[in-house]
Amino acid sequence: MTASKNKIGEYPFVAEPFHVDFTGRLTLGVLGNHLLNCAGFHAAERGFGISSLNEENYTWVLSRLAIELTDMPRQYEPFSIWTWVENVYRLFTDRNFALLNQAGEKIGYARSVWAMISLSTRKPADLMAMHEGGITDYITDEPCPIEKPSRIKVTSGEPVATLSAKYSDIDINGHVNSIRYIEHILDLFPIERFRTGGIRRFEIAYVAESYYGDRLSFYMDQSSEDTFEVEVRKSASEVVCRSKLVFASRNS
Amino acid sequence: MTASKNKIGEYPFVAEPFHVDFTGRLTLGVLGNHLLNCAGFHAAERGFGISSLNEENYTWVLSRLAIELTDMPRQYEPFSIWTWVENVYRLFTDRNFALLNQAGEKIGYARSVWAMISLSTRKPADLMAMHEGGITDYITDEPCPIEKPSRIKVTSGEPVATLSAKYSDIDINGHVNSIRYIEHILDLFPIERFRTGGIRRFEIAYVAESYYGDRLSFYMDQSSEDTFEVEVRKSASEVVCRSKLVFASRNS
Repeated sequence: MTASKNKIGEYPFVAEPFHVDFTGRLTLGVLGNHLLNCAGFHAAERGFGISSLNEENYTWVLSRLAIELTDMPRQYEPFSIWTWVENVYRLFTDRNFALLNQAGEKIGYARSVWAMISLSTRKPADLMAMHEGGITDYITDEPCPIEKPSRIKVTSGEPVATLSAKYSDIDINGHVNSIRYIEHILDLFPIERFRTGGIRRFEIAYVAESYYGDRLSFYMDQSSEDTFEVEVRKSASEVVCRSKLVFASRNS
Repeated sequence: MTASKNKIGEYPFVAEPFHVDFTGRLTLGVLGNHLLNCAGFHAAERGFGISSLNEENYTWVLSRLAIELTDMPRQYEPFSIWTWVENVYRLFTDRNFALLNQAGEKIGYARSVWAMISLSTRKPADLMAMHEGGITDYITDEPCPIEKPSRIKVTSGEPVATLSAKYSDIDINGHVNSIRYIEHILDLFPIERFRTGGIRRFEIAYVAESYYGDRLSFYMDQSSEDTFEVEVRKSASEVVCRSKLVFASRNS
């Protein structure tokens, strides 16, 4: 119990006024930002953070993220995020999350897949070789009862929107940041879609980086009344990321 | 000293990875968000917060904000924000801020002007009549060595950009949120403008609300090599806000 406790990182937050949407619920972009920060805190506290890795010239790269929610924290609500490592493979690690409301009830889960790359060669590192495989010490079997990220396919050939990557989109690495893609994808939908319960499941797979000035095109399929697949391409050809969204049913 | 100490609210932060720009400095939008949160904390702790006001059917409305910076916190840097009340008039109050870096040095200041309005009538409230003028107990003469917000005038008749307000722009009141205007205004500039030192002074005056779907047009004057004035209008006519930006000189 104590050992497993130490394997799970627990981080408190409050839903700030500018971090909630028009319904008063925390936005998915802000939740994504918190999840990635928690991953960073948890890794750093255990010697696998960006800052210790950077000294060794390695960094973490987020490959996939899947979030499933039954509710979201409301404006001013204190909430917390738990995170832990589920699996470590040679080139990837699975990190999971739980989202807990003010009452301590689990109102969401997330699954993420990360690779470690060398900053000099941009090639993936062997996770089993880092710190003599020490990262595996943190694996724990805390339940995460949501589906793994799926393989997303988009067939539409006509973009529903295009934009140029601007100053506010770009992170310290010179890339469009992972959270901005989430915001731009949500902004493809009419606001009415978010009125009754918002997003039930959101997935994103990061395929390639995009940069300042890149022309991003958004292609969308609708596979059921509440399910959409989105592909973001740059220069109308190279895939940057793919996303799948399931909205709460409008009847529920 | 103790009395003045209690009048100043001090709040700690860390510059998160997704809150810094491509130069690794905290973005102005995130700083603005923190300033407004600090205003909220400070007011709430003294009985003048949104939640206590809302019970009485009043809320704070930000009218003007001016920020002046010599530097910005860097990624992962702990920093803090101080805030205090400088003046209270019948219909407005002046709230000031200081930004302190990790070493405790003041690297920026801000001035803001707020009104209180009734949620039922949307009319301004008499601040001197609230809580029997109790808000004046918190006035302190902590120095804030920057100019007050100026009167901004824009003459250009051709918009440099237009956009439609989207889901992510809208806050719990159904308005485009105050911070999003800052981000959209910064995004009018080529990224190169931010490479050498960024913004030295930023002002914004909020004139009218805009809403989901509103078509926002951005008009810009350049009054010196490093100074720009921006006016945001909706439906190409009604003024929503005006802003003035002074960038660090490219030679410095």
